[in-house]
Amino acid sequence: MQVVDLNSDMGEGLGPWTIGDGVDEQIMPLISAANIATGFHAGDPSTMNDTVEMAGRHGVAIGAHPGFRDLIGFGRRHIHASAHELVNDIIYQIGALREIAAMNNLPLHHVKPHGALYMHIARDEEIAALFIQQLHRLAPELILYAMHGSVIHRLALEAGHPVVCEFYADREYDNNGSIVFIRRVTQLDPQQIADKVLKACTEGVVTTVEGNDIPVQFDSVCIHSDSPGALALVQATRQRLEAAGITIRAPQTRLLPPDNSWKNEVFNG
Amino acid sequence: MQVVDLNSDMGEGLGPWTIGDGVDEQIMPLISAANIATGFHAGDPSTMNDTVEMAGRHGVAIGAHPGFRDLIGFGRRHIHASAHELVNDIIYQIGALREIAAMNNLPLHHVKPHGALYMHIARDEEIAALFIQQLHRLAPELILYAMHGSVIHRLALEAGHPVVCEFYADREYDNNGSIVFIRRVTQLDPQQIADKVLKACTEGVVTTVEGNDIPVQFDSVCIHSDSPGALALVQATRQRLEAAGITIRAPQTRLLPPDNSWKNEVFNG
Amino acid sequence: MQVVDLNSDMGEGLGPWTIGDGVDEQIMPLISAANIATGFHAGDPSTMNDTVEMAGRHGVAIGAHPGFRDLIGFGRRHIHASAHELVNDIIYQIGALREIAAMNNLPLHHVKPHGALYMHIARDEEIAALFIQQLHRLAPELILYAMHGSVIHRLALEAGHPVVCEFYADREYDNNGSIVFIRRVTQLDPQQIADKVLKACTEGVVTTVEGNDIPVQFDSVCIHSDSPGALALVQATRQRLEAAGITIRAPQTRLLPPDNSWKNEVFNG
Amino acid sequence: MQVVDLNSDMGEGLGPWTIGDGVDEQIMPLISAANIATGFHAGDPSTMNDTVEMAGRHGVAIGAHPGFRDLIGFGRRHIHASAHELVNDIIYQIGALREIAAMNNLPLHHVKPHGALYMHIARDEEIAALFIQQLHRLAPELILYAMHGSVIHRLALEAGHPVVCEFYADREYDNNGSIVFIRRVTQLDPQQIADKVLKACTEGVVTTVEGNDIPVQFDSVCIHSDSPGALALVQATRQRLEAAGITIRAPQTRLLPPDNSWKNEVFNG
Repeated sequence: MQVVDLNSDMGEGLGPWTIGDGVDEQIMPLISAANIATGFHAGDPSTMNDTVEMAGRHGVAIGAHPGFRDLIGFGRRHIHASAHELVNDIIYQIGALREIAAMNNLPLHHVKPHGALYMHIARDEEIAALFIQQLHRLAPELILYAMHGSVIHRLALEAGHPVVCEFYADREYDNNGSIVFIRRVTQLDPQQIADKVLKACTEGVVTTVEGNDIPVQFDSVCIHSDSPGALALVQATRQRLEAAGITIRAPQTRLLPPDNSWKNEVFNG
Repeated sequence: MQVVDLNSDMGEGLGPWTIGDGVDEQIMPLISAANIATGFHAGDPSTMNDTVEMAGRHGVAIGAHPGFRDLIGFGRRHIHASAHELVNDIIYQIGALREIAAMNNLPLHHVKPHGALYMHIARDEEIAALFIQQLHRLAPELILYAMHGSVIHRLALEAGHPVVCEFYADREYDNNGSIVFIRRVTQLDPQQIADKVLKACTEGVVTTVEGNDIPVQFDSVCIHSDSPGALALVQATRQRLEAAGITIRAPQTRLLPPDNSWKNEVFNG
Repeated sequence: MQVVDLNSDMGEGLGPWTIGDGVDEQIMPLISAANIATGFHAGDPSTMNDTVEMAGRHGVAIGAHPGFRDLIGFGRRHIHASAHELVNDIIYQIGALREIAAMNNLPLHHVKPHGALYMHIARDEEIAALFIQQLHRLAPELILYAMHGSVIHRLALEAGHPVVCEFYADREYDNNGSIVFIRRVTQLDPQQIADKVLKACTEGVVTTVEGNDIPVQFDSVCIHSDSPGALALVQATRQRLEAAGITIRAPQTRLLPPDNSWKNEVFNG
Repeated sequence: MQVVDLNSDMGEGLGPWTIGDGVDEQIMPLISAANIATGFHAGDPSTMNDTVEMAGRHGVAIGAHPGFRDLIGFGRRHIHASAHELVNDIIYQIGALREIAAMNNLPLHHVKPHGALYMHIARDEEIAALFIQQLHRLAPELILYAMHGSVIHRLALEAGHPVVCEFYADREYDNNGSIVFIRRVTQLDPQQIADKVLKACTEGVVTTVEGNDIPVQFDSVCIHSDSPGALALVQATRQRLEAAGITIRAPQTRLLPPDNSWKNEVFNG
């Protein structure tokens, strides 16, 4: 692997509050793709605008990071909503960020649902199908970030929608290739994380909690910015990858612009 | 006047709740422009989607109706927020509705701020200037609905931004041409309202609370859908205008599409 | 049965919005117990205050009606929150209504969780146990309204906490005694509902969707105020019961005041 | 002055987010009175419960810290709401915290409105009168924290309601005795603040921005916990006061319990 993407959630503050160590400004220059919270689980229009501007300043690709409508739960609690309702919520959030990015003369690059919504579209056929159908029609150029082998990954491939798979640097894998759920992320060792990412990039494997090496397929490394000590994790990982000659760069969107000619339409009564 | 626009606020329910008489479905076919609530003072993504779809079905022009972030106060209470924060809030809301309209293959036609925000940009130079600057850059085709002679009206004209002035059918005017503030709108007589609108359309005047006729300039008649008996007001007004040979039609947007070529840009890292 | 309670959800509007037919004022004089929404799934402090005042005027017993923190979903969508978090949410809501009731010189009479929360504590041992433990300690006089045979019903009995079981007049039962879930409640026939309630009160049975009569145990009849035509259902039911000599009255709370002497404590550093 | 109270806002996080330096746990043992956010401008039931428990562990007096319903603006933006609506909001919040305190076997000690609401009741006769009337009736033992010479201070004295005046350690005074408004609080020097507080306690004066010493009357020193470096300010102040032989202790509530016999009432139909 000569090139890899490094993505992190950005703009997950809310009004006067900060999340995790509050180090977006330090992390932003080190990553290639920013998943920007869009107001339902975190973020607000002014935080979004500041974060988009900051991403633009560092040449970082801007992604929409829509979540469940659940501020207190930070979008990490599943809500039993209908597929139609959730897709409307997602499209609303994408549009909101797209307009704020446009205000900064920047295009959207990708979309990555957050937390419980990420898991829900990874597993639920109904929402995944409805979402990919609308996304592909509305924004065929927006790369979807997804879990390899998930329902949404399969459906994106079937629809011909651009999709990027992730390696979760700060989470443990088990022998099934599943992420081991943890209630509270503890401080991780930056050098161990950097080693793990380098091994995944160069050998294509990760060591599971059971002690085996299993294959992993990905184009992007995800490090959660609200992990304690997140900045050190990102710094160590970037350094290790660059030392190994691996370039950190966001995946390119398709060169052909999508057919969104409807956007130039005017109302003619 | 041979042609006039008839606009009304639509989609101002919230989740399971209805506003006023809950008669959007009956009013929609009778108007030419719908101001659709965008989630901050009323509305939610699914209500927005249903309302956009309904507007499309009846050939009604779709406008964004952004408000203060204040559900309980229905956007009718002024909040002392900064101009930058408010413009970010407005752009967020416009983008959200634009994407939901796109999901229904429909373009946005206009933007009309709601309630206390409408009054705020009518009077406050700082927010009005910042808003028209961003609106004109981001969406030069989106017609602004405004109060004749307001700060935002003047600034829109100066910026060369398309603007439409309104006649408030269900509000009283005083001799200064100002709207008389009322705490609680009472049931109005549909025939009186229809007479008042027809007179305004044909003679260009309105009778004030003091009993004088003063000139009014407008391209669009506004009837509030949450007034008690709103449906009867709209029905009587439409009937009266049509009987007088006046066509009800939304103002046309500019024929030349705006230069939003940036929207087709792709991220090239 | 000589006496039965008739309870209904009240105050489930929100700010300017109404739910269902918006007929709280007509229903209130006809019921004996009002479950008043406490701001998380519906209601706001001013709506709560108006509703408490209205209940007091008609001698109707006031109950707290706490729900999931989910306005858009009206508390009808399950949220995967922890038991501790949910109990804190419930206690917060009870306290808020208790203080507003006190402002009107009225005591709380009961507590009935709403929607998905009602179902959750009916089934989940962890939340039910934690809730009944805190409720019994904080408010041993507050009667719990519950589903007969549910987990919370059993735990309330074990704890010696006063509990009242409900008969759901506007829902269908199956042969297991379970409520048949329906996505959208249709208009029901008032006379049929009245017949069903009278039969339940006098014969202690309900006819299931399969056509059998099964026994039902209850002290209170619940009619949902957001059902279409709710007022007619309540009117017909009350009339039928009174014609049969059955008195509609809220269950009495215990005559001995609870030991809440801590409430009179003052802070002594 | 032999004894002074030291109060600070606590529990102003929200769900997963922290405010300021996130040092409630370090500040709590150093103060004598905690103003706990009650969910409208900050705080949520679980944060409230954790904060109440922490205050109890350190013997710190618990106060309700109600604010405007405005999370994004952190209750610092004035909202043009009616006096009745605001008092209902405040009573709701006091009740919610009272119940959560009761769950921890702790009484409420005081109430201090937050931010823009604190300023509003300091100046507006209508809300101040309505608030003090309801507070005095509902919770005559709850000490009101207020600005010396404010409208609410005067009305509390007239009503015979216990009131405590504050000295704002981390704000500048002008020659009129008014607080100098600053948009963004910068890092302050802990020793200077400690000197200023000691001088106020021992000499009863504060040096204004114009350079004059003016008299100040207070019973409690307020240090804002969301100021940058707040912990150092509290530490230095406490140390300086104790070194000067001044005891830091919350004001005592009245020894006679209030007549809240209505709270033991039961509903008797």
